[in-house]
Amino acid sequence: MRKFKLRSRLKIPETHPRYASLMRREKLVAGVEAGITSRQGLIAHGRGEAFDYLIGERSLDSARRATEAAASLLLAAKKPVVSVNGNVAALAAAEVVELGGLLNAPLEVNLFYRTEERVRRIKTLLEREGAERVLGLRADARIPEIEHERAKTDREGIYSADVVLVPLEDGDRCEELVKMGKKVVAIDLNPFSRTSQQATVSIVDDLERALKNLINLISAVKEQKRSGESAADLLGAVLRGYDNKANLREAVKEIVKRLKEDAEGVQAVPGS
Amino acid sequence: MRKFKLRSRLKIPETHPRYASLMRREKLVAGVEAGITSRQGLIAHGRGEAFDYLIGERSLDSARRATEAAASLLLAAKKPVVSVNGNVAALAAAEVVELGGLLNAPLEVNLFYRTEERVRRIKTLLEREGAERVLGLRADARIPEIEHERAKTDREGIYSADVVLVPLEDGDRCEELVKMGKKVVAIDLNPFSRTSQQATVSIVDDLERALKNLINLISAVKEQKRSGESAADLLGAVLRGYDNKANLREAVKEIVKRLKEDAEGVQAVPGS
Repeated sequence: MRKFKLRSRLKIPETHPRYASLMRREKLVAGVEAGITSRQGLIAHGRGEAFDYLIGERSLDSARRATEAAASLLLAAKKPVVSVNGNVAALAAAEVVELGGLLNAPLEVNLFYRTEERVRRIKTLLEREGAERVLGLRADARIPEIEHERAKTDREGIYSADVVLVPLEDGDRCEELVKMGKKVVAIDLNPFSRTSQQATVSIVDDLERALKNLINLISAVKEQKRSGESAADLLGAVLRGYDNKANLREAVKEIVKRLKEDAEGVQAVPGS
Repeated sequence: MRKFKLRSRLKIPETHPRYASLMRREKLVAGVEAGITSRQGLIAHGRGEAFDYLIGERSLDSARRATEAAASLLLAAKKPVVSVNGNVAALAAAEVVELGGLLNAPLEVNLFYRTEERVRRIKTLLEREGAERVLGLRADARIPEIEHERAKTDREGIYSADVVLVPLEDGDRCEELVKMGKKVVAIDLNPFSRTSQQATVSIVDDLERALKNLINLISAVKEQKRSGESAADLLGAVLRGYDNKANLREAVKEIVKRLKEDAEGVQAVPGS
């Protein structure tokens, strides 16, 4: 398992059936204590947890398809940027740093509840994880139609990017990025969220699972390129046949199927 | 609208389509700042938000039936107790105080992440709202099979109660209360949670909506009693015909129905 810098004070045995889920919560609470995650971010995480339960805490087929389309988009990008908020920093700093490195893409700190202090803390955390280029402090450009603090972005970063990966973005910013002509890849467990509905490619999956799948796919393409093969062409074919709305409907269908099964057995789930 | 003591620093216009939901979040965040709500409580609230979206942010027919059965149980109780945790205190202090008054039932502060300080703060908040009897500080009895801090309860309160209302309880405590022979009324938005599965009557509804419905029903019964009628008998009939598992399956069916409709329209939802 990957190390993470934000250590929890709670000791949870690795054998606990809810280990992964409980550790995620503790990492976020530690993120709040370290001043990098917002309290509202905890509520947003809870919403994600509920949807993750509904999809069975695994990557759906529809999510795998979206991840392939996303990998293709990101590999073909001229100027990709990976957006990082307080939840992403607490939960998956190592993964976004690794992905940024593979794509040769900067990370941009992009907060809903922005403070300079929080941006700086997240930048430091990402750099400790090995990030070479972390944007978001300059804030010398604005996303149109978004109110003051939340509109801030870096001219050299998201503002001029052609493809933006936004894990856990809020809906109206996602919508504006698309209106600016960018391709937006979202990671969001709620298939109904405005972000999922607005993005070019919506990966309805847990943040860490989705990032690891993206890293594996993109690493494989890079390996094969060196040996002359073309996995990139295969991903490109997925992207050409990809319909985001249809794929979201598939995700909902899988949720409905699972709910119906559960309603029969009515079995208990942990967590509340 | 009811006044509440925990004021938010964020100004949200009452015309905002997400006003109620955003205010709930701000009340909880204010609760964390006031030292009465835990950070993990924010994550739990987020899970509830997701389920509330799935049920359409309204009281389902199945929830209304459960509320009637619950009102009947509470009215017939010899020693009812209303359990209050950090989320309940932040979101619905006035409502639990009103309900406790109607039932002549004490409130008992009952925390997953218990500290004496937090119990005292919640007690003070409830007393400011008019509560006459707030238990939970004495902690002179233990719920069996529950580990140390979380086992603590008052001998005169939950420990010796015959009917306990647990809004937002965790699963294993709920299970143990039932094993102790108590009737447990739960309010929990997740129909699959262990709490919902274990309780005697599970109201799958938002906390404030459920408490207001309970208050209205119980007030009506008390009014009618004075005039000689018997609304209590009507509620009693609901309780006799009540099957909690079947009612939970009804709740899931309503969620599935809504998801299917949404998957057709694929419409955006706010909040993420």
